[in-house]
Amino acid sequence: MFKMYGFWRSAAAFRVRCALNLKSLAYEEIMIDLDAGEQNAPAYQAINPSMSVPALFVDDGAPLTQSIAILEYLEERHPTPALLPEDPRERARVRAIALLFAADHHPLIVPRIRRYLTEKLGVDTERRTDWIVHWFREGLVQAEARLKDDPATGRFCHGDRPTIADLCLISQVMGAKGFQVKIEEWPTIDRIARAILELDAVASAVPLRQPGAPASH
Amino acid sequence: MFKMYGFWRSAAAFRVRCALNLKSLAYEEIMIDLDAGEQNAPAYQAINPSMSVPALFVDDGAPLTQSIAILEYLEERHPTPALLPEDPRERARVRAIALLFAADHHPLIVPRIRRYLTEKLGVDTERRTDWIVHWFREGLVQAEARLKDDPATGRFCHGDRPTIADLCLISQVMGAKGFQVKIEEWPTIDRIARAILELDAVASAVPLRQPGAPASH
Repeated sequence: MFKMYGFWRSAAAFRVRCALNLKSLAYEEIMIDLDAGEQNAPAYQAINPSMSVPALFVDDGAPLTQSIAILEYLEERHPTPALLPEDPRERARVRAIALLFAADHHPLIVPRIRRYLTEKLGVDTERRTDWIVHWFREGLVQAEARLKDDPATGRFCHGDRPTIADLCLISQVMGAKGFQVKIEEWPTIDRIARAILELDAVASAVPLRQPGAPASH
Repeated sequence: MFKMYGFWRSAAAFRVRCALNLKSLAYEEIMIDLDAGEQNAPAYQAINPSMSVPALFVDDGAPLTQSIAILEYLEERHPTPALLPEDPRERARVRAIALLFAADHHPLIVPRIRRYLTEKLGVDTERRTDWIVHWFREGLVQAEARLKDDPATGRFCHGDRPTIADLCLISQVMGAKGFQVKIEEWPTIDRIARAILELDAVASAVPLRQPGAPASH
């Protein structure tokens, strides 16, 4: 049984929940309320100096952090079912799509950025939402351009089996939907997102199904 | 001989140059002038829809993108000398440090973000510099907290041999120095950065030694 610090809305925690579920690894998730700033409490900082989730305990040592590093660890230690292809060239393609979402775009809209926009730059709510929507859209535009005419794209981002690229795609898609972004604008992403959500392992991991999420959806 | 699209100042291209040098892999780098917006030209967009560098050609197919995906590819195809430890737990630590820089902080200060701050939010030069320096400092603060008292830290971020964590650390340190951030404030990072720069493979890859860099340094 893994123990993990997460949060219902966190895209990074969502990716890790998906991987744990896909690999049939049991876990307990302790929610750190990012809206209430619990990640900045000294007790949590001692666990993860980056003051972010997820943090996954795998032994008696310090927890693993950074969702992509955690996904790679799970893949190495629990390789079945595989979430990366075998060929290095194909693995590079999958990782590049994953990082397009997880490195290039997701970090732009996390709580600490929103706080800086409001508190240091005096950005109002409307323009802050514009910022968030802009970067969600940019990531989706770029991913659509990569995926749409590439013969390596299949039912999922890479062929017909889910990979870490799909976990990063769906986490970003769900976040964008939370800001009323219409995913239908990008037909390849929309199609892949629907395919991923058909997997029970992913459907049960979506943010709005986690403890603490708003009940209205 | 690898062919790569890069830019003298790009932290991501710098990381890849370091890895190619450390692994004694010959390459030719074609500079895409990010200041002049060459990355947004249709011809380059066709090569990399993300309109960023680096892009590394490894065969007749589309180039590899995303520096972390490229580093993982080089490690898998050219494993000697290793830039990741062997143990999955240790690999996760190295990757988490690499991503702390490459995913959590570096994407916050790249040209497209600077442009948005100026053009869409009307942020003046001084406050834009404050933004850049703030996020450089945040990354260095977090990394110092992770590294300083951890027995896994050695001459480098992980033990006494360079890893991808060090390549991400030095790329962020050199970027911060370009904004007059005093690295001495974080003694562990400062010490590791000095050790990395003693490696010829890294010293020859630093931004200011590349074609197109300002000659005044």
